[in-house]
Amino acid sequence: MWRATILTLFPEMFPGPLGLSLAGDALSRGVWALDSQQIREHGIGRHRAVDDTPAGGGAGMVMRADVLAAALDAAAPADDPRPRLLMSPRGAPLTQARVRDLAAGPGAIILCARFEGVDERIIAARQLEEVSIGDYILSGGEVAALALMDACVRLLPGVMGEERSGEEESFEDGLLEYPQYTRPRDFEGRDIPEILLSGDHGKIARWRHEQALALTRARRPDLLSGRKG
Amino acid sequence: MWRATILTLFPEMFPGPLGLSLAGDALSRGVWALDSQQIREHGIGRHRAVDDTPAGGGAGMVMRADVLAAALDAAAPADDPRPRLLMSPRGAPLTQARVRDLAAGPGAIILCARFEGVDERIIAARQLEEVSIGDYILSGGEVAALALMDACVRLLPGVMGEERSGEEESFEDGLLEYPQYTRPRDFEGRDIPEILLSGDHGKIARWRHEQALALTRARRPDLLSGRKG
Repeated sequence: MWRATILTLFPEMFPGPLGLSLAGDALSRGVWALDSQQIREHGIGRHRAVDDTPAGGGAGMVMRADVLAAALDAAAPADDPRPRLLMSPRGAPLTQARVRDLAAGPGAIILCARFEGVDERIIAARQLEEVSIGDYILSGGEVAALALMDACVRLLPGVMGEERSGEEESFEDGLLEYPQYTRPRDFEGRDIPEILLSGDHGKIARWRHEQALALTRARRPDLLSGRKG
Repeated sequence: MWRATILTLFPEMFPGPLGLSLAGDALSRGVWALDSQQIREHGIGRHRAVDDTPAGGGAGMVMRADVLAAALDAAAPADDPRPRLLMSPRGAPLTQARVRDLAAGPGAIILCARFEGVDERIIAARQLEEVSIGDYILSGGEVAALALMDACVRLLPGVMGEERSGEEESFEDGLLEYPQYTRPRDFEGRDIPEILLSGDHGKIARWRHEQALALTRARRPDLLSGRKG
């Protein structure tokens, strides 16, 4: 079973949207498991402090390394084989390839930071892998963790059924997905492209590939440079 | 007031994590508003069908343009000034600059697709802007919409307080954030860098800038090529 352990100041955010739909069904069927741990239980003193002012000055607060170490150590033994992820805009951008790797593994331990982030020393001390879901700033790691888990869970055996999605095939080929159409044939005077109604599967496959390539060239030429094939 | 209107098959996913913490406080104080609309209310026939098989064949289902048009038209008048976003891995990658623009505007109408996506014709017919939160595939647009709203809401006046976050300053400068440290001074034999304890603010600022630059060069050289200054 794929297991996610979340360390957060807001455990009640989980499973949140992942308690519904495909991910939620899979959660109740035991295809995956999620536990969220309150970091504050390992806070310092009467007020269970988890953060302090930045050394060297500056705005905001930094999460303490000792508190995070205690939370991590309580959540999973040192020999837990799951990768320890820190959701952070400084991290390696999440890709579908990394999602596939994570989904193929035993799960993940995910640390969600708030405020100005974490004391740098916890990263090396507990071998955290910094992961970014994109080049924008969230109020904390929680929504990023939800995105990462959503991407992983849909790939687990038995979650999506046997069908591979077209989007996925397209992404694996390094291309954006070709345009899709369905009924009605006439929508506000806009028709479905004739070729898709031709029944010629070879021509349709070629057209879709050309469309995907043209779309990728126009919107994301960066994807084409790293493309296989 | 910043207003988000979500079109989804899972309105109960909202506000979800955004009902808590900073975003949740701001929501209850009326700094922003969120309404989520069930697309299925505009479905076809007795079963309220929202999707159909792809023209030209292929796996999965495609959301119907007529159903989505009805849902969009019911959710907001044609002259609603808010941008109409479609969360999609084919979209323009979300950036902090786009987040700032969106946060400065009146809000957003956000269409969350499921299955193999939407009939292409709805995009032009209703001038949808495709937005991607990253190069990975989610089970639907809902978690992507949560990420986009989280990023926007924290920038609204009165949500974060007056302080600008260091992460944000760093991102605006096109750099990843420098390492942060806080108490204790000795963590498992790892010290806070001496310079941060020196009290020399000029030196500290230079050190932080150098660290941010070195980190960005090592991890995200792509950010440096587009950098201002």
